[in-house]
Amino acid sequence: MGIINNNFLKLNESYLFQEINRRTREWMAKNPLREVLRLGVGNTTEPLTPVIVDAMHKKLNELSYVNTYTGYGDEQGNNDLRAALADFYKREYNVHLDRNEYFVSDGAKSDAGNIQELFSPSCKVAVQDPSYPVYVDSNVVGGRSGLYNSNQLSYDGFVFLNAASENGFIPSPPKEHVDIIYLCFPNNPTGAVATSEQLKAFVDYAKREKAIIIYDAAYADYIRTPGIPHTIYEIEGATSVAIEINSFSKNAGFTGVRLGWTIVPFDIEADGVEKGLLHKLWNRRQCTFFNGASNIAQSGGVAALSQEGRKECRGMVDYYLGNASIILNGIKKVGFECYGGINSPYIWTRCPKGMSSWEFFDYLLNKTGVVVTPGVGFGKQGEGYVRISSYGHRENIEKAIKKISEEL
Amino acid sequence: MGIINNNFLKLNESYLFQEINRRTREWMAKNPLREVLRLGVGNTTEPLTPVIVDAMHKKLNELSYVNTYTGYGDEQGNNDLRAALADFYKREYNVHLDRNEYFVSDGAKSDAGNIQELFSPSCKVAVQDPSYPVYVDSNVVGGRSGLYNSNQLSYDGFVFLNAASENGFIPSPPKEHVDIIYLCFPNNPTGAVATSEQLKAFVDYAKREKAIIIYDAAYADYIRTPGIPHTIYEIEGATSVAIEINSFSKNAGFTGVRLGWTIVPFDIEADGVEKGLLHKLWNRRQCTFFNGASNIAQSGGVAALSQEGRKECRGMVDYYLGNASIILNGIKKVGFECYGGINSPYIWTRCPKGMSSWEFFDYLLNKTGVVVTPGVGFGKQGEGYVRISSYGHRENIEKAIKKISEEL
Repeated sequence: MGIINNNFLKLNESYLFQEINRRTREWMAKNPLREVLRLGVGNTTEPLTPVIVDAMHKKLNELSYVNTYTGYGDEQGNNDLRAALADFYKREYNVHLDRNEYFVSDGAKSDAGNIQELFSPSCKVAVQDPSYPVYVDSNVVGGRSGLYNSNQLSYDGFVFLNAASENGFIPSPPKEHVDIIYLCFPNNPTGAVATSEQLKAFVDYAKREKAIIIYDAAYADYIRTPGIPHTIYEIEGATSVAIEINSFSKNAGFTGVRLGWTIVPFDIEADGVEKGLLHKLWNRRQCTFFNGASNIAQSGGVAALSQEGRKECRGMVDYYLGNASIILNGIKKVGFECYGGINSPYIWTRCPKGMSSWEFFDYLLNKTGVVVTPGVGFGKQGEGYVRISSYGHRENIEKAIKKISEEL
Repeated sequence: MGIINNNFLKLNESYLFQEINRRTREWMAKNPLREVLRLGVGNTTEPLTPVIVDAMHKKLNELSYVNTYTGYGDEQGNNDLRAALADFYKREYNVHLDRNEYFVSDGAKSDAGNIQELFSPSCKVAVQDPSYPVYVDSNVVGGRSGLYNSNQLSYDGFVFLNAASENGFIPSPPKEHVDIIYLCFPNNPTGAVATSEQLKAFVDYAKREKAIIIYDAAYADYIRTPGIPHTIYEIEGATSVAIEINSFSKNAGFTGVRLGWTIVPFDIEADGVEKGLLHKLWNRRQCTFFNGASNIAQSGGVAALSQEGRKECRGMVDYYLGNASIILNGIKKVGFECYGGINSPYIWTRCPKGMSSWEFFDYLLNKTGVVVTPGVGFGKQGEGYVRISSYGHRENIEKAIKKISEEL
């Protein structure tokens, strides 16, 4: 394999959603008269809201006239959107950061994948288990792992922070030294949210160990319980240890429109890293590998952060949270043990009767036509669980829960 | 620098456009009554065309209704756009590739930067000198260079393929073995275009050396001389050695909208790399680090590739080529030695009287208020040249050329 990056060759195929689709198709072929009800993927289903659509139409009109046309924007994002982000954090979270600390991107997935490029291949990386696969996969490509280990259902070399019912799916900071910790709250897939005290333990750890926290807050708008932090910067001192990644996907329906942001505070420092360096390097990274997010999407983002836009988007999140509540109550009534679904769009359900994730997936599909996501696809600790997603039209959610109530 | 990627620390700040802006601002402050005429950056100035704007408004409307809303698309791009790309290559270039060999992206810059991730840090990389800085910078980050060498005005470890007036700015293939060759035709910054024979020499070299060509064709639509290849796949056998990167930026005005594509043929093979592997790895890379280009931009892309869209876009390119022609003729009349500007939006101009790139930049700015790009910003061989860009409104181009004619 002369010229190929060996780290890429370590990377397993990502079979989870392919395998879900394969099994679903097979079942449909065998049961042509039965209805499939998909509660698997975390894909938004509700339309963009009026204020956002209007802003994007307006931008599109501007792009169609010679006097208002604009070409390349700044790689870091347009000034008005960066200012709107800074204002939004001040207004809603009392977090005061400079607009230049906000980097606009084409979505949280890109940033979550790319951020590791700033760090040495020798860095020790900790991830929650289970977790969104991009944190692990991108670090495999970055050379921070060993080979795939089928006992761990992941790669050697990572520190896995186990999330289980015993710790309320909120792991403690690692016992050993690590350099980088990925955290995601509200968590995908478990739906768990961390309290200020729990987050503070990670911030304290990072300060002590001179480590960096990469905090994925893509589901922050689903938090409705008072007192639960929406951003890691609500924790004192977090600006000196944490990078935060966020997105317009799940709160404004931009999954297909593509827009996100990453905050790299000027204040971050770490082992051998003086203040300002990480900010400067991420800036250089974006200027080299990226040419800015779509200007149409960015206009939509500014509208989404306006008072009116926030109100509309809250309505959209309410809708999905309403779905989550229907799922949670329905599943609980059947007697299943489940978590999340309150400050999160995901309901993390323990498979009944000791079934494995895939066994329960098949069982549920056969009995009810409902498709969920096997928890084992998110890591070893996900075995024995499934993730149920509240992204869907209300009538489908209700139909799925009715089916489950009747058939199980 | 414990936890930082050392390769990032090798990377110099990118001063070129910053320094241009600094000197321009300084001049403006000193000459408040004089007009600045910017022929520096390669940024489009003409509005999006009607067919494209209509398609994007339509998509936006679809996203605003529950029955037509869609969320995540495929990471590889939407099927209709991939099909439209495959059809466009068949129709216009007689190049027959499968739609799945086309990967849609948010622009050529991202792909040009990211493609190197697939390759080993030990790969030897050849770039044209001068060239678009992303090829070099991304490979520095990828660990395929030594330190910055101020004699070379670049990094150690690269093989530089010198483009100069003696070879018509078309270098020959390297004498030594390399693993990866970046080529860009029509070239940025020199405006040179390669003939089939010249490209065939590179394809033959790549086959012989089991190397990979990364072919940046972002300016292909500016080629109007019959017989000059628009895509490297017009060269026999190129599908077994070349990846091609292209963009809607310069032919459809998508610099701010963001949309591009990269072709990784199934057939590519290289040293130790069997057919299909590179395609599979790029697919895996995009699925891990990218979540698809904006669906609004993609609808615009489909429209741009329609017969009507192609006609409109040709009109837009004609406009910039008209500008190029005015610049080329005007500059020639003043007696300057210049290249490009025929099948390219860039006019590569030798600085008069042995001036350096920056000396001529200052001279031109002081005499005429015209801002150009110092050629040395693109590499050592660019010293003694400036790049003049035809992106601008016609009246500004004419004004600039008039100024140059009168003052020089």
